[in-house]
Amino acid sequence: MNDLMLTSLIDRALSEDAPGGDVTTLSTVPEGTVVTGRFLAKEDGVLCGMDAAAAVFARLSDAVSFDRKKNDGDAFVKGDVLAVVEGDARAILTGERVALNLMQHLSGVASQTAAAVRRIAGTGAKIVDTRKTTPGLRFLEKYAVRCGGGTNHRFGLSDGVLIKDNHIAAAGGIRPAVERARAAVPHTLKIEVEVERFDQLAEALDAGADIIMLDNMTVPDMKKAVEIVAGRALTEASGNMGEKDLREVALTGVDLISIGALTHSVRAADISLKFQ
Amino acid sequence: MNDLMLTSLIDRALSEDAPGGDVTTLSTVPEGTVVTGRFLAKEDGVLCGMDAAAAVFARLSDAVSFDRKKNDGDAFVKGDVLAVVEGDARAILTGERVALNLMQHLSGVASQTAAAVRRIAGTGAKIVDTRKTTPGLRFLEKYAVRCGGGTNHRFGLSDGVLIKDNHIAAAGGIRPAVERARAAVPHTLKIEVEVERFDQLAEALDAGADIIMLDNMTVPDMKKAVEIVAGRALTEASGNMGEKDLREVALTGVDLISIGALTHSVRAADISLKFQ
Amino acid sequence: MNDLMLTSLIDRALSEDAPGGDVTTLSTVPEGTVVTGRFLAKEDGVLCGMDAAAAVFARLSDAVSFDRKKNDGDAFVKGDVLAVVEGDARAILTGERVALNLMQHLSGVASQTAAAVRRIAGTGAKIVDTRKTTPGLRFLEKYAVRCGGGTNHRFGLSDGVLIKDNHIAAAGGIRPAVERARAAVPHTLKIEVEVERFDQLAEALDAGADIIMLDNMTVPDMKKAVEIVAGRALTEASGNMGEKDLREVALTGVDLISIGALTHSVRAADISLKFQ
Amino acid sequence: MNDLMLTSLIDRALSEDAPGGDVTTLSTVPEGTVVTGRFLAKEDGVLCGMDAAAAVFARLSDAVSFDRKKNDGDAFVKGDVLAVVEGDARAILTGERVALNLMQHLSGVASQTAAAVRRIAGTGAKIVDTRKTTPGLRFLEKYAVRCGGGTNHRFGLSDGVLIKDNHIAAAGGIRPAVERARAAVPHTLKIEVEVERFDQLAEALDAGADIIMLDNMTVPDMKKAVEIVAGRALTEASGNMGEKDLREVALTGVDLISIGALTHSVRAADISLKFQ
Amino acid sequence: MNDLMLTSLIDRALSEDAPGGDVTTLSTVPEGTVVTGRFLAKEDGVLCGMDAAAAVFARLSDAVSFDRKKNDGDAFVKGDVLAVVEGDARAILTGERVALNLMQHLSGVASQTAAAVRRIAGTGAKIVDTRKTTPGLRFLEKYAVRCGGGTNHRFGLSDGVLIKDNHIAAAGGIRPAVERARAAVPHTLKIEVEVERFDQLAEALDAGADIIMLDNMTVPDMKKAVEIVAGRALTEASGNMGEKDLREVALTGVDLISIGALTHSVRAADISLKFQ
Amino acid sequence: MNDLMLTSLIDRALSEDAPGGDVTTLSTVPEGTVVTGRFLAKEDGVLCGMDAAAAVFARLSDAVSFDRKKNDGDAFVKGDVLAVVEGDARAILTGERVALNLMQHLSGVASQTAAAVRRIAGTGAKIVDTRKTTPGLRFLEKYAVRCGGGTNHRFGLSDGVLIKDNHIAAAGGIRPAVERARAAVPHTLKIEVEVERFDQLAEALDAGADIIMLDNMTVPDMKKAVEIVAGRALTEASGNMGEKDLREVALTGVDLISIGALTHSVRAADISLKFQ
Repeated sequence: MNDLMLTSLIDRALSEDAPGGDVTTLSTVPEGTVVTGRFLAKEDGVLCGMDAAAAVFARLSDAVSFDRKKNDGDAFVKGDVLAVVEGDARAILTGERVALNLMQHLSGVASQTAAAVRRIAGTGAKIVDTRKTTPGLRFLEKYAVRCGGGTNHRFGLSDGVLIKDNHIAAAGGIRPAVERARAAVPHTLKIEVEVERFDQLAEALDAGADIIMLDNMTVPDMKKAVEIVAGRALTEASGNMGEKDLREVALTGVDLISIGALTHSVRAADISLKFQ
Repeated sequence: MNDLMLTSLIDRALSEDAPGGDVTTLSTVPEGTVVTGRFLAKEDGVLCGMDAAAAVFARLSDAVSFDRKKNDGDAFVKGDVLAVVEGDARAILTGERVALNLMQHLSGVASQTAAAVRRIAGTGAKIVDTRKTTPGLRFLEKYAVRCGGGTNHRFGLSDGVLIKDNHIAAAGGIRPAVERARAAVPHTLKIEVEVERFDQLAEALDAGADIIMLDNMTVPDMKKAVEIVAGRALTEASGNMGEKDLREVALTGVDLISIGALTHSVRAADISLKFQ
Repeated sequence: MNDLMLTSLIDRALSEDAPGGDVTTLSTVPEGTVVTGRFLAKEDGVLCGMDAAAAVFARLSDAVSFDRKKNDGDAFVKGDVLAVVEGDARAILTGERVALNLMQHLSGVASQTAAAVRRIAGTGAKIVDTRKTTPGLRFLEKYAVRCGGGTNHRFGLSDGVLIKDNHIAAAGGIRPAVERARAAVPHTLKIEVEVERFDQLAEALDAGADIIMLDNMTVPDMKKAVEIVAGRALTEASGNMGEKDLREVALTGVDLISIGALTHSVRAADISLKFQ
Repeated sequence: MNDLMLTSLIDRALSEDAPGGDVTTLSTVPEGTVVTGRFLAKEDGVLCGMDAAAAVFARLSDAVSFDRKKNDGDAFVKGDVLAVVEGDARAILTGERVALNLMQHLSGVASQTAAAVRRIAGTGAKIVDTRKTTPGLRFLEKYAVRCGGGTNHRFGLSDGVLIKDNHIAAAGGIRPAVERARAAVPHTLKIEVEVERFDQLAEALDAGADIIMLDNMTVPDMKKAVEIVAGRALTEASGNMGEKDLREVALTGVDLISIGALTHSVRAADISLKFQ
Repeated sequence: MNDLMLTSLIDRALSEDAPGGDVTTLSTVPEGTVVTGRFLAKEDGVLCGMDAAAAVFARLSDAVSFDRKKNDGDAFVKGDVLAVVEGDARAILTGERVALNLMQHLSGVASQTAAAVRRIAGTGAKIVDTRKTTPGLRFLEKYAVRCGGGTNHRFGLSDGVLIKDNHIAAAGGIRPAVERARAAVPHTLKIEVEVERFDQLAEALDAGADIIMLDNMTVPDMKKAVEIVAGRALTEASGNMGEKDLREVALTGVDLISIGALTHSVRAADISLKFQ
Repeated sequence: MNDLMLTSLIDRALSEDAPGGDVTTLSTVPEGTVVTGRFLAKEDGVLCGMDAAAAVFARLSDAVSFDRKKNDGDAFVKGDVLAVVEGDARAILTGERVALNLMQHLSGVASQTAAAVRRIAGTGAKIVDTRKTTPGLRFLEKYAVRCGGGTNHRFGLSDGVLIKDNHIAAAGGIRPAVERARAAVPHTLKIEVEVERFDQLAEALDAGADIIMLDNMTVPDMKKAVEIVAGRALTEASGNMGEKDLREVALTGVDLISIGALTHSVRAADISLKFQ
């Protein structure tokens, strides 16, 4: 399925970039010209997007080879050759930008995630992503988070239950909300409840929540909340985590730290394609 | 067409987020529940994505109104109410994240662009974007650049000619490359040539290039290049412009400054949806 | 999203049935002819598919009203009028079969589910469905199960973990399989393990499985398994449940009984459209 | 075209089942694991769906072989190995359910059809299907009917003319309805008229109908109708044929017996995939 | 279905023409500008394509009215106003070319058909089309043939049987080919056989062909063939009919004259949109 | 991208022609039958459509070879073998018409273009196409124009600026229209202005138009206009050029002659497929 989604995404990207073909390349580069290019790292980071890049060229021509020097999830340093692409010059020049756009964005996500994971190394916490992803790219961005050493939160609204204040208000309280969800959703899903205060925490635990999201709490409050939960549920720290000291948060004992910025504010990794 | 593309993008985003429906909302929020929410700015910026957000809710329900308090292209400050969404709680809760993902990303692009535009105010230069966009979102990101006061470069490979070193090598020189392109592409397109050195600049001018891209030149070299061109072609400064002093670049007299980071490294604008 | 899926399904169904239009109706029924038809139950059952039927006619013409006399989930008896469709004769005659195909199939699923649910009334068990659904109709068939009073199992492979013998063999045992899954999948998903024997049951419990599927066990063995589990996990009876005495199974104390036949072997409900 | 439709159906089925991948398999089964599975018949029947099953695995991986031991249209008995699938364990486990869902459903249709065909063996009648098919699966279900020894009725509304009471009422009688249809539809299509009474039969014959559908007639009436027609048109017995004594119907001399239950009420064939 | 196909065609046409919007109109015509245009006939002809043109503008804006002065199938003369379009100038200017392309092409088909129909007026023959249509436009071109007074041949390969020499060679003769087809295809389809010689004609009649295509015969041979057939089958004259004297052909007594040029060699009707 | 569009077009064409398969071929031609066919020119012309034809057969079967004897852009004379197709008879017979429809139409466009190009040989003018193309086929028709020796005008509304009277009226004059367009559209696009009179010509030149379209001018007026322009802009002759003496037009000194009839009024090239 991911392959089907990837093909579909690449088709859209190529159609978007060249609905009427690459007029520069078609007019200046003779058919049959062959070229070799190297994908070069121009800074340090963690790689993601090699399948995507390879698929771009494969979609454009059977006469292009894509030789990986590094794999998704590998760390790279400035100057590393990440892959060598060789063959039909027209296909390579036409696909270059789409391939780079994917590699740079996904390696950006992976690198940001890896930095967060390194920051909490040795604590028991996990870095997880959110649904704050780029429309159409979620499956790739969540994959990039895994490449960076993070773990995925629910993929979307259909495969996880997260009860927030509006659900609680509409249901008439935390307990009825949890009970309704438990009765109606597949028994394979856990029930997560978002809390901002200790009285809500107590209600959620009482209602049997499987996961407690501690939203926008201070570090001391998170610590206190973890103590109150005492292993009865998983705890997830949430709320502008991109701007917090992650190590401090992790040391409160929370199980999970979810960071929207991993995917909503991505600095593209600096990777370029150099021809010989 | 943009409307067709927007609908198609939103359908993909909603299907991605909730292929099997929003299980939390469907189980906890009774049918017919009504809610009012305010899109709030949590920092300053320039707005983009109101049509997209409105379209998300319209796609999910006829029973949701979306009342704009600001329009695309407007500046906003922390605390501003950007829009009020009101109606069917299920649709609003299900669409909230997709709407925010679009608004935050696009307002991020618009705000970054506006910052660059402000920086060169009063010079004759224009800020333009590149093809370094997010796959599937180019039409929206280019629109966001316009909302931020920037101007668009070519949309893609089919509507502009940009001759780079590989095209030149394959064609056997700048002159033959320019001539081939001029003979083959629609006469409605200008011919742009990328140069890194002054000898290339001379050749490109000699070949009659309409636009000269000055790639990775120092500010003094750019200034000298502009003088050499002397109005015979448009000049475009390019190459890691995101990290340069844009005002200094603009004061060299270049016509255009293209910045990949406007769209490839976007910090999401901090906007949230608050319910009453 | 379900609406988007429904529209897409109906478009496919109409295109499949009439790629070149309804040649009989177009040639024999004058434009503008108006007709009234009644959807009639010709046997007892539980209704499902009213939204789908209404959407068929809505897709074909703005000049057709669809007036529901019963709603999805309602029981009906032979002779009941389920809905009245009125308006443009061409659209009604062209859409009749697609609408009936959906209503009859989905009401068949709902009615079969309701019969199973009635059979175990008063026990603590729930009837759940499986992934043994008709390709392309899963979201509707799972909805029909809910209309019949059943509960849904995981929607598919992405929103639930079910570890079977092959996964166990590949992972090198139940414990490593459970541990790998728990480390890698979103923390919002429970871990279900399929067991056929008591030693497997012990291992699964020991590994911390959240749900135990008791596959193809005899009723006495199920009873014993439930006692062993003693509330430490949910228990699900599985394996040709369509042919078992469901009440007997439910009385073993299992939490869930999953029945593939609810959706893989459906007898269409006998519903017809009668014109006046 | 059928191949295009099959690919499209399988893509939908796989996306439906695993929009975000098979989380269990991806987490527990190491990349590169190889497995061999046997599709086993657990009851007697007629096979259909081998191309579909093969296509599922081919779509998921190039590293899976699908070796057929029986072909579509072959009879099988309990215990028969129908096919052996071998190769990449992840692809096989992910595709297993979709492949089985197709094989079991289509073999169910083929087996039901074969039973009906056997029942009328030696008479001159043919068993034909109807448009009472599963939305999106018609081309496969009609193929399954052929595998079971049946013959197809028109595919849909565009490739056959069937004039029913509503068409007759709108056209002002059987004769004008037949004449209008004959004048307007392609000359390659025969004209079929549905009749319930002998006066209608006389009118239809008089109007030159090519085929007469005898709807909901008793066996003696059908016999009498066949005598009246006397070879001037084809005759088709219709109306709850799934519950009639088909041999008795066939012996009336009708040319065709159409049975909706062949496709609208399908009991899935009991086939499973066993790994070694 | 035709509506669904039309929408899909128009979306493709608009995306093809303006993948990135209408840059001229968006930059020069202020939002909210209103305009009125008249579709004018610049020569005589028969109209087709009004639904298509209306749908183009409807797809682009809710703020455009399309007022028909003539309907599909109506004859028009030079100077006639065919329709008045009024409203949002941006939508009208953007959709103008797509709407005209459809109207001009389809009216071209209708006008050519009408000319052929007039030529054989008073004979018993009908003008029919072929499968020599423009890929993607068949449903519209066949509709245009009907608007011009012609009749449709089979829509495509699935709704009509036409046995040609290759089928005959592969089947081992006309008789076995006809028999195989009759046994396998739906009983609702007639069997047409293409013949070039009298011995083939005799065989085809003998085999019970329902329709005989007389391919590339001289007019005297056609006349003789019609006499031989003597009402036992329909006869269809075929083969470069676009270059024959149609009246002479019709007077041979053939039932049908099929003309590929009706749709494969279309002169666009001269229609323009004039603004006030 | 063109390959993606071609595949998509061919899929639509095959689905359109045979939504339920080729019933004649499937019933009369045994599986595994092999056949050889020759694509024969039955008149002189210029070839276009070989990739499209090859792709049709490739899409239907891996067991068909397509051996080109001529290439796109080659001239052919009556009697030439253009290609030999060999292999699976079912696939070849099913794909024959779609392949021919594409080849005949595109070779028709190429041949018409070549005739126009020959007519102006030796003058400095170029023959260019327009947006008067067949919906869905523009990329192929524009390619056929190039095969015939013509040059393409803008592909569509997004990659070229053409300011017509309505744009001028809405903008308040030629100068403001040109200025608005120049400020807003990508700097890579030239600005073309349509003029009918000499005062408009003067205004357009004054406003700095890059290209002047001389619409519906007499030959002497065109000559005068070219003199006035005096190389300050490209000049394009337009308006019913299909009916003009092209050589005379070319000799006025215009740079470009655009002819809508190249693509809107196409006579199919006479090409047939003959089997041995």
